[in-house]
Amino acid sequence: MHILILGAAGMVGRKLTERLLREGRLGKADITRMTLQDVVAPAKPDKAGFPVDTATCDFAVPGAAEKLVADRPDVIFHLAAIVSGEAELDFDKGYRINLDGTRMLFDAVRLAGGGYKPRVVFTSSIAVFGAPFPEAIGDEFFHTPLLSYGTQKAIGELLLADYSRRGFMDGIGIRLPTICIRPGLPNKAASGFFSNILREPLAGKEAVLPVSEDVRHWHASPRSAVGFLLHAATMDSAAAGARRNLSMPGLSATVGEEIAALKRVAGEKVASRIKRTPDPFIMGIVDGWPRNFEAKRAVQLGFTTAEKTFDDIIRIHIEDELGGKFVA
Amino acid sequence: MHILILGAAGMVGRKLTERLLREGRLGKADITRMTLQDVVAPAKPDKAGFPVDTATCDFAVPGAAEKLVADRPDVIFHLAAIVSGEAELDFDKGYRINLDGTRMLFDAVRLAGGGYKPRVVFTSSIAVFGAPFPEAIGDEFFHTPLLSYGTQKAIGELLLADYSRRGFMDGIGIRLPTICIRPGLPNKAASGFFSNILREPLAGKEAVLPVSEDVRHWHASPRSAVGFLLHAATMDSAAAGARRNLSMPGLSATVGEEIAALKRVAGEKVASRIKRTPDPFIMGIVDGWPRNFEAKRAVQLGFTTAEKTFDDIIRIHIEDELGGKFVA
Repeated sequence: MHILILGAAGMVGRKLTERLLREGRLGKADITRMTLQDVVAPAKPDKAGFPVDTATCDFAVPGAAEKLVADRPDVIFHLAAIVSGEAELDFDKGYRINLDGTRMLFDAVRLAGGGYKPRVVFTSSIAVFGAPFPEAIGDEFFHTPLLSYGTQKAIGELLLADYSRRGFMDGIGIRLPTICIRPGLPNKAASGFFSNILREPLAGKEAVLPVSEDVRHWHASPRSAVGFLLHAATMDSAAAGARRNLSMPGLSATVGEEIAALKRVAGEKVASRIKRTPDPFIMGIVDGWPRNFEAKRAVQLGFTTAEKTFDDIIRIHIEDELGGKFVA
Repeated sequence: MHILILGAAGMVGRKLTERLLREGRLGKADITRMTLQDVVAPAKPDKAGFPVDTATCDFAVPGAAEKLVADRPDVIFHLAAIVSGEAELDFDKGYRINLDGTRMLFDAVRLAGGGYKPRVVFTSSIAVFGAPFPEAIGDEFFHTPLLSYGTQKAIGELLLADYSRRGFMDGIGIRLPTICIRPGLPNKAASGFFSNILREPLAGKEAVLPVSEDVRHWHASPRSAVGFLLHAATMDSAAAGARRNLSMPGLSATVGEEIAALKRVAGEKVASRIKRTPDPFIMGIVDGWPRNFEAKRAVQLGFTTAEKTFDDIIRIHIEDELGGKFVA
């Protein structure tokens, strides 16, 4: 099985790559080849049980997507995107990458010919939803994004469903909760602070909280996100019927609950490294975001999380990223 | 006030044009100029109280949309589309016109500069919804189109909302019920038979019914459709908030109820001109279509229909299209 990962240099892409390298298989199939793509050169893994190629390119440039699918990968993970904050600040760039790039990829698959019909796993986002919301967002709630990023993701979902319905590909779209705790350096996502206020204090550093403690949001660990991707790549897509885009399960928690979990797992001193500096731009964006979901269909279709509580989310970070230790 | 009508040669475009010519005003503003665009030359009206230009072009061709908005029309009615059956049969054409054309238009408005921000009225469709449905589709039901046409319209709605949110234009999208009775010749819309089985018998001709009598669907008269467009062009768009795409009110009726209304209004003999010839292609398409709506928001925002019963729909056709007479 040949696997292509688009956006492989990003956080989720790297975690997915590591997991696939470690397991050497996807579902019941042995991996025979992997191609890692990103606009910045993805790290080439040291040791792999199969050939791993890297491709540094922008597939929103005409012709680039065709090259990526020319070798007919069996599974394509499409994780590439301009994140929410940047897509809001740079209208043209967001539409070019998130909409045109996705469509060019899907069209390259469609036009490859010879019965080519790969599984395409597309990471959508809960930003397809916009306030006002019901208490918990169900599987049939409509898409009224309040950001260009969410608009572009919602369009990607529609294209994925139509291209799948017409038999051009076998797509599954998954709306990831906000990933928490996101490792590494902050990126331009407006949701970054949900992770920053946990990750930085655990590393002995101060972190800025730009919103109030009663902001409620929807989270999943990086470990859960990788699990969702693997399941989306191997599940029986026919079971999803025509409704191929799914809200993933997650945990609903307020910023206050996050901080309380941090205190329980790592102590008061760690939590005291959080500094409150309200930011109206971030507050404005977050105001329109989902707070809670009822992800029934995804659960019925076999998607599961790695965590039961926010304490678990923090423990998973300490285990997977910090070698079991934090700065007390 | 300068009004631009895109798709002016189509049935709804012609009716809208006639009404605007007759009234000479839109809301409280006198019409000072009108531009009629279509891919086939729109008829130039004989007598108009203001200058009327026609433009024959395809605005999905790069550069064409810029020319259409160069004179900064105050209100743009975007009615142009490849219809459902044709968009399903010709994938590339449907996406090129319905998606690319719409986006090029919106981008031409966005990039016109100088604070240009016209009201843009976009005709979407109930084909943005896909079965299975609730008993009546509410205002927050999700979009899972089962046709490429519905996919393209759903994408147009998302773009309209995002471009409006960002202040590039002042858009209102309206999901028209299936127009009944559609005058003139049958077009390639899969929904054509809902009108054919009334219009043709009223004209003394036979008509083919390709589905069973228990097929339920959602209808509005051409007179209502024009009324919706005028209201969408003049309403306070701020009242719609960020949710600028609305399901229009209409009438839910089965084919059997349509035929019963025809018998009541025009007699048994007229109704006997309907011939039953099941068509699996049409039946397959119609199976995934909405049957009933609860269009609360549109009603709250002032949209009203011209008919109360299906009998009214037939009477409106006889009045508006047949000069009060039909072939008994």
